[in-house]
Amino acid sequence: MTAASAHHVVIVGAGFGGLEAARDLAGAPVRMTVIDRRNHHLFQPLLYQVAVASLATSEIAWPIRALLHRHKNVTTLLGSVVGVNIREKEVLLDGEPSIAFDTLILATGARHAYFGHDEWEPHAPGLKTLEDATKIRRRILSAFEQAEWETDEARRATFLTFVIIGAGPTGVELAGTIAELARDTLRSDFRNFDTHSARVVLIEAGPRILSGFSEDLSAYAHQALTRLGVEIRLGHAVSKCGEDGVELGDEFLPARTILWAAGVAASPAADWLNAPADRAGRVLVEDDLTVPGHPHIFVIGDTAHVAAADGKLVPGVAPAAKQEGRYVAAMIKARLSDGSVPPPFHYKNAGNLATIGKRAAIVDFGWIKLKGRFAWWMWGIAHIFFLIGLRNRLAVALSWLWIYISGQRSARLITQGQAKKGEAPN
Amino acid sequence: MTAASAHHVVIVGAGFGGLEAARDLAGAPVRMTVIDRRNHHLFQPLLYQVAVASLATSEIAWPIRALLHRHKNVTTLLGSVVGVNIREKEVLLDGEPSIAFDTLILATGARHAYFGHDEWEPHAPGLKTLEDATKIRRRILSAFEQAEWETDEARRATFLTFVIIGAGPTGVELAGTIAELARDTLRSDFRNFDTHSARVVLIEAGPRILSGFSEDLSAYAHQALTRLGVEIRLGHAVSKCGEDGVELGDEFLPARTILWAAGVAASPAADWLNAPADRAGRVLVEDDLTVPGHPHIFVIGDTAHVAAADGKLVPGVAPAAKQEGRYVAAMIKARLSDGSVPPPFHYKNAGNLATIGKRAAIVDFGWIKLKGRFAWWMWGIAHIFFLIGLRNRLAVALSWLWIYISGQRSARLITQGQAKKGEAPN
Repeated sequence: MTAASAHHVVIVGAGFGGLEAARDLAGAPVRMTVIDRRNHHLFQPLLYQVAVASLATSEIAWPIRALLHRHKNVTTLLGSVVGVNIREKEVLLDGEPSIAFDTLILATGARHAYFGHDEWEPHAPGLKTLEDATKIRRRILSAFEQAEWETDEARRATFLTFVIIGAGPTGVELAGTIAELARDTLRSDFRNFDTHSARVVLIEAGPRILSGFSEDLSAYAHQALTRLGVEIRLGHAVSKCGEDGVELGDEFLPARTILWAAGVAASPAADWLNAPADRAGRVLVEDDLTVPGHPHIFVIGDTAHVAAADGKLVPGVAPAAKQEGRYVAAMIKARLSDGSVPPPFHYKNAGNLATIGKRAAIVDFGWIKLKGRFAWWMWGIAHIFFLIGLRNRLAVALSWLWIYISGQRSARLITQGQAKKGEAPN
Repeated sequence: MTAASAHHVVIVGAGFGGLEAARDLAGAPVRMTVIDRRNHHLFQPLLYQVAVASLATSEIAWPIRALLHRHKNVTTLLGSVVGVNIREKEVLLDGEPSIAFDTLILATGARHAYFGHDEWEPHAPGLKTLEDATKIRRRILSAFEQAEWETDEARRATFLTFVIIGAGPTGVELAGTIAELARDTLRSDFRNFDTHSARVVLIEAGPRILSGFSEDLSAYAHQALTRLGVEIRLGHAVSKCGEDGVELGDEFLPARTILWAAGVAASPAADWLNAPADRAGRVLVEDDLTVPGHPHIFVIGDTAHVAAADGKLVPGVAPAAKQEGRYVAAMIKARLSDGSVPPPFHYKNAGNLATIGKRAAIVDFGWIKLKGRFAWWMWGIAHIFFLIGLRNRLAVALSWLWIYISGQRSARLITQGQAKKGEAPN
């Protein structure tokens, strides 16, 4: 146990950044409190696989307190932070007493955003939490169930049309896997229609999909998705999302399942701190990841606006958040030991990966670009490697092996909805 | 494909009985419609393991239509049956057109019952569905989370008191595993209290636990549970369940987590048929499992009241439901082929098993009784054997191996609740 008088580091958010900082500070002469709204750390890069019934929720989520229990200087609390009292150096919580800090690390992540159209959310759910994933899974599977009942061809077609808005990695991964779900997994399960008649439409406002990748990799992914049967609509911004479909300019596309993968906004950390932020709500931190004027408050991960060496923004990906977490832990240790000041944060590009269905992927490490089946194996092995704990690595490997061989997905559960045509009110 | 004019068998409910009947009729000259309110078949004997975070939901549930998709004479529908029109030979559905049948098999199961105290349900949830299990898991895990915040000793004790009402197999299995969860899995996860201070209280109105077993096995289980730290209160009926605890006669036992394992009632099939039923709502079927006066309507499983050879009731367990499903399938095939009448249904006792924590179990096959660690291994192997599909057998074996070796449970997720102190309204 560390003395109660030790320097107190409060970490809000146990995503990739917060967890990395906590682990790196485990041996330091500090006591730590890690606060998260959820009891689990989530492996977000594979969240879409829960949404498409490939993986179970528990295969990509771990209880935060189990991940930190060996470190006796860490207290984990389940709680909802609602503000920061900078003057008193306190974190404010919903329904619990405030918690004082000496150093604060805000790693509170991002949520999907609707660009001023919050009324679209009920019709086009986004994918950030386990509950989002099981909700999307319920919607996709329920649409097929409703199609089996429907006798009117046109109405059945609306149940069998799946629209994904936004062609970043999440949108592409969702589109590819839903197409495979219809053509492969569900192939022989229905009697009143052919699952091949399902339409998967990927809508992107920009001129190409996966704009974070080079043009040739993006073109390859476009081709691979088209081969899976996905219709890609480029240069189309959605002007309306409703219960019955989406509006693209003059065109109305009837669809009962719409998924949102078009944009995210940072958590409200900038509001809590009254700090300068960019348009997506990310705090404009100094080059040591502190909040301007508050050297004892750090912001990292998807909530921070950090410029990389090439002038671009550090992307909102797991490796970036981890690097920031490590940097902040090192900074705190340096301050507490000899008071030295480490050099500014430097982002090291860890590569960019996206997968298209269960056979193809694209990988861009900067110095080398890969595509196709080999890239897919690399993607799979990398993701299994980065999962936490041997047990989950084995479980995910088993699940993938099964899908690869049999085409069957084990997590095809409609839960938490109504008894029928399941759609829960939340 | 079977001709649309073929004899039409409608099966309502795809639990152990309904599924067995459907599979046995797959080769027969009939067409079948299987209707269930859920999209998944549930392996109920292991449901309590989802509630205590040992197994993932998808490890004990399979999509019904995937289990039946090979049989081209089966149509699977997700729908809620609300009645039967006997005269027109139609099943009535909620929000969908009626479905005509030539032969009807009702295998609609049971729900937990509160003996006229339905107002207890929000405070003392029972365990019959996957949603029940994740709700109970959320309550158990959230109680520990709240205890970590609580500074008042007496109030903390109420968060750390877990009351289970009813000492049948489910109650005993819940009590044993919650005790292990506190003493083993969560041992080093909290900083503000010792998880060994958690109390698990098992309340039973009768004179002994596991009254379905012989007295010596029941006494052994009593001893094994006590060794795990479970307090057993025999001869106590609960007179009140509330948010803050339970009332036992004059005594009030403060507890924030109360679980109900005390009783079940059959589905409303007897009402749909206007048929004679016992006090638990089970239809009093003929010795060929038909409804009196309606030879084309069968009732099987937990919804049927069937007398065994020894005059006792056929128990509401999976092997009994399966035997009934097989019997009805054979009866239908005999009627359609040569019109012969098979002998009355005869229940073959398949044995009685219960487990106490992760080291002990009791097994009673009639001709042999076993207890202790060997019985536990038998219990485990038998359950893995009866799971459907190689993939789930591997996955469950992996999960159990992990718990056995490390004490860590992989499915410790608080989901579908509010962001904090999670309790969802449903």
